Amino acid sequence: MFSPANSWRDYSRRLLREDFSAALVVSVLLIPQSLAYALLAGLPPQVGLYASLLPLLAYAFFGSSPVLGIGPVAVLALMISQALGALPAGVSPAEGALVLAVEVGLLMLLAAALRLDALASLLSVPVLHGFETGATLSIALSQLPPLLGSPGTAQLLQFEPTTTLFGVAALTLLVLARRSLSGQAARFAPLVILLLALGLAWGFEVQGRGVAVVGILPPLHLGLALPRLDGEIWSALLPHALLLALMAYVSSLVVAESLARRRGERVDARRELLGLGAANLVAGCSGAMPVASSFSRSVLMHDAGSRSRMTGVFVAVLMGLAAWLLAEPLAWLPKGVLAATILVAVLSGLRLQPYREAWRFSRPEALLMLLVTLTVLAWSLAAALALGVAGSIALLLQRTARPHVALIGRVPGTEHYRNVDRHQVECRADVLGLRIDESLVFTNARSLTDVVQLHVDHHPGTRRVVLLMSPVNSIDFSGLEALRELQTALQRQRVQLDLSEVKGPVLDRLRAGGWQQWFKGQVFLSHHQGMSGD
Amino acid sequence: MFSPANSWRDYSRRLLREDFSAALVVSVLLIPQSLAYALLAGLPPQVGLYASLLPLLAYAFFGSSPVLGIGPVAVLALMISQALGALPAGVSPAEGALVLAVEVGLLMLLAAALRLDALASLLSVPVLHGFETGATLSIALSQLPPLLGSPGTAQLLQFEPTTTLFGVAALTLLVLARRSLSGQAARFAPLVILLLALGLAWGFEVQGRGVAVVGILPPLHLGLALPRLDGEIWSALLPHALLLALMAYVSSLVVAESLARRRGERVDARRELLGLGAANLVAGCSGAMPVASSFSRSVLMHDAGSRSRMTGVFVAVLMGLAAWLLAEPLAWLPKGVLAATILVAVLSGLRLQPYREAWRFSRPEALLMLLVTLTVLAWSLAAALALGVAGSIALLLQRTARPHVALIGRVPGTEHYRNVDRHQVECRADVLGLRIDESLVFTNARSLTDVVQLHVDHHPGTRRVVLLMSPVNSIDFSGLEALRELQTALQRQRVQLDLSEVKGPVLDRLRAGGWQQWFKGQVFLSHHQGMSGD
Repeated sequence: MFSPANSWRDYSRRLLREDFSAALVVSVLLIPQSLAYALLAGLPPQVGLYASLLPLLAYAFFGSSPVLGIGPVAVLALMISQALGALPAGVSPAEGALVLAVEVGLLMLLAAALRLDALASLLSVPVLHGFETGATLSIALSQLPPLLGSPGTAQLLQFEPTTTLFGVAALTLLVLARRSLSGQAARFAPLVILLLALGLAWGFEVQGRGVAVVGILPPLHLGLALPRLDGEIWSALLPHALLLALMAYVSSLVVAESLARRRGERVDARRELLGLGAANLVAGCSGAMPVASSFSRSVLMHDAGSRSRMTGVFVAVLMGLAAWLLAEPLAWLPKGVLAATILVAVLSGLRLQPYREAWRFSRPEALLMLLVTLTVLAWSLAAALALGVAGSIALLLQRTARPHVALIGRVPGTEHYRNVDRHQVECRADVLGLRIDESLVFTNARSLTDVVQLHVDHHPGTRRVVLLMSPVNSIDFSGLEALRELQTALQRQRVQLDLSEVKGPVLDRLRAGGWQQWFKGQVFLSHHQGMSGD
Repeated sequence: MFSPANSWRDYSRRLLREDFSAALVVSVLLIPQSLAYALLAGLPPQVGLYASLLPLLAYAFFGSSPVLGIGPVAVLALMISQALGALPAGVSPAEGALVLAVEVGLLMLLAAALRLDALASLLSVPVLHGFETGATLSIALSQLPPLLGSPGTAQLLQFEPTTTLFGVAALTLLVLARRSLSGQAARFAPLVILLLALGLAWGFEVQGRGVAVVGILPPLHLGLALPRLDGEIWSALLPHALLLALMAYVSSLVVAESLARRRGERVDARRELLGLGAANLVAGCSGAMPVASSFSRSVLMHDAGSRSRMTGVFVAVLMGLAAWLLAEPLAWLPKGVLAATILVAVLSGLRLQPYREAWRFSRPEALLMLLVTLTVLAWSLAAALALGVAGSIALLLQRTARPHVALIGRVPGTEHYRNVDRHQVECRADVLGLRIDESLVFTNARSLTDVVQLHVDHHPGTRRVVLLMSPVNSIDFSGLEALRELQTALQRQRVQLDLSEVKGPVLDRLRAGGWQQWFKGQVFLSHHQGMSGD
């Protein structure tokens, strides 16, 4: 484990300068995003600042990636706001968010202890992308009322002119800055725009004119305290905490892996789980909300030259300073400007290209991607995640249930055997070479005999069937029974069943199952030997 | 579709005699079983007789197998009795059984229309066997109180002496007959024992001595009528109907396939679904209960020489005659004798050997089998089925998530490549041959790069990696992304990625996904060419 104290001596001045300047760049983006994402989650704005303080320190100590921008995240904020809908009456959202964060943290630590990090693989690329796009669109929609000062999404036309002016101006400037500026100018432009909005809002005293502003934040209070230990709250939030933990972990892992690859490093999935778990546990004990790593801030951190996890420590310090010094001036910030910040942040990540790519690649997967997106928009994030996981598993089962079957022959002049329908190959009249492109598992076990029988029926002269087992990556108990039934069925027709290229792990399994007691055929090392034999 | 009228001319006298004698043998077994299984389901005894009448005719017209002994089945009866627990107050079990049967029938016909017959593959051998064993044991336990005349399973010692005498005597005789007799004698022994019990019960007027008897059956009433169309009943039973339909279909299919193989025939799974659906629909409209095919009666039917589905028609006619002629004498039959019939029928199918075999073959599958059995005994059949299906899927996912990876080399003197850890093979220093034993799907996609990187790190001189794709039976969108990432990661280290033995269907998918736009390596027909190249 990394300890800043021990390796302080190795930590040169140059590294310190690079880490600090990266921290500065990230903090500039993080201040408005923290406030905005807390509001998006239906929480007081200062909760976002707290989420960008101690949790970062916790991750810096326990996590693995030096460039992971931990803190409040847009998609997670939306999930939190939906989760807080499940709170019992009389419990404040802020209290609920603390419980939620502790639950997320504990679940992650539990998963790390039980080595359940592989559960992350349940989220396929189509599901992840469909989910994120749906969440992005639904966040963008939710920001239109605060941007325009309208009472709700259905009453957008009842906008408040001054709020709209501030919001749209901020939005336009942010987009322009992103498009036309580069380097340090681009990085500090959001801060300049924010200060400009603050100054104007203060100068024109817009609050009196009906513009919603952030309001005076309570004084900074750093310290750890357990959230309310109320069984009803905890059990109401637990299912949401499960989904939040899964999403926070997977999305952070994707970011970590993508950046690790750029840096030629490797991600330790379990260590990542530990770091995120610690960060969320601390978040729940320090007045914050569930946290994860933000893709945009992590990329920024990497691009701004972060060299070690000290960057995270510096960000936390800078955020603390900001919360202390800016508490009063920030009170004047119009909420519409924060909405503009969210809109630019989430919409910059919107990519529709994967839908097209998935559609060309596989219709069912593209439809699943679309269905997950629509479920997010029309129903809930939780339902969309559940549907996505179930859909991915169903597609996988269907793929194993209906394997591709090929009659194979020899590619002339080689010892290689391929599908007769796709290649010019040589076959024998009395020996049938068959390749069934799937592991022998319960989903396809019942059809094995039928599939082989079909080919034997088409070749009446068959004396022997050689099953090429290289596509059989595993065999389960149902598959073992199926193999036995196939041999019995072929024997009845005086056809011998031989196997070729049985892989080591499969052969081990067959032996453990005592197949030598009933299997009458031969096992050939290569299919070529199997077809040449006798 | 088979129509008895059309093929009547081909139906010779000899065939008729064989079918009729098979029907006679089956009917002798079916009369007591019908009454007993109805009682087991918590229904009046005559319901079992109705389940052995018109549903058989419906199956004979729509089903495919000539030897399927359709009718009341022990496991199904137990599931029905648990399902009827969900009935709203004030609805009689008999009414509920009719609704259940119609729902099962409609679900099966729907599944046939939507070509969902592949769903049957969700029940793996361990789940099926664990379920059936658990059901068998729990049926056997439930028969002890009626066998002994005790008030319940917990009060077995409060037995009723005369009932116990009848029950144990019948049980002993049935077991002896099964063990020591053979041929026609064995087949008609149950009838003789039944008649003997009837005669003794009538002669000694046991009903007056506290022995529970079947009682006078209502007069036979053949006719079709829709069951009660009450939304509350229908929706309360629907989840149970779903599980009943799945179980009835899968268990019947297993029987049909096992017998078809003995007869050198093939089962049309969809046609089977149609026949069972029609049989259950008719069952629900003719005073019966859900039906399926019984393994023991089907084997008997086959062994007794059934030649065509006319056997089923004859069985229905004989059962009708029995219900008409035997209604009065059957009233005297002690219920304990029926319990003995059930005990012998279910316990004869009890096999513990598969637990041992599964344990040797694979611990997780054996544990799943055991867990399903225990869930049946301790909780419910529905929970056990749900657990079993979820468990099988989890094991399958785990298998695809953690594939076996092998570094492969050339078997000397051949063009064949195998695992360096298991075989004496030749390797090259600059070209790495790798085999990842799984399809490239979302469960393992995220780890692909890591797995390959590990091997590249161990072989610093690597210039080229040739991935043997013969174990890759399919690739999904997540797998495509993973392949792209792998190439990017290897390129950064100036290592080229080549593929060999990519199967036709996978190559089609890669092309559809537009991989030629980014894939820089070569695709070799055989791994040998891939390793020899350059």
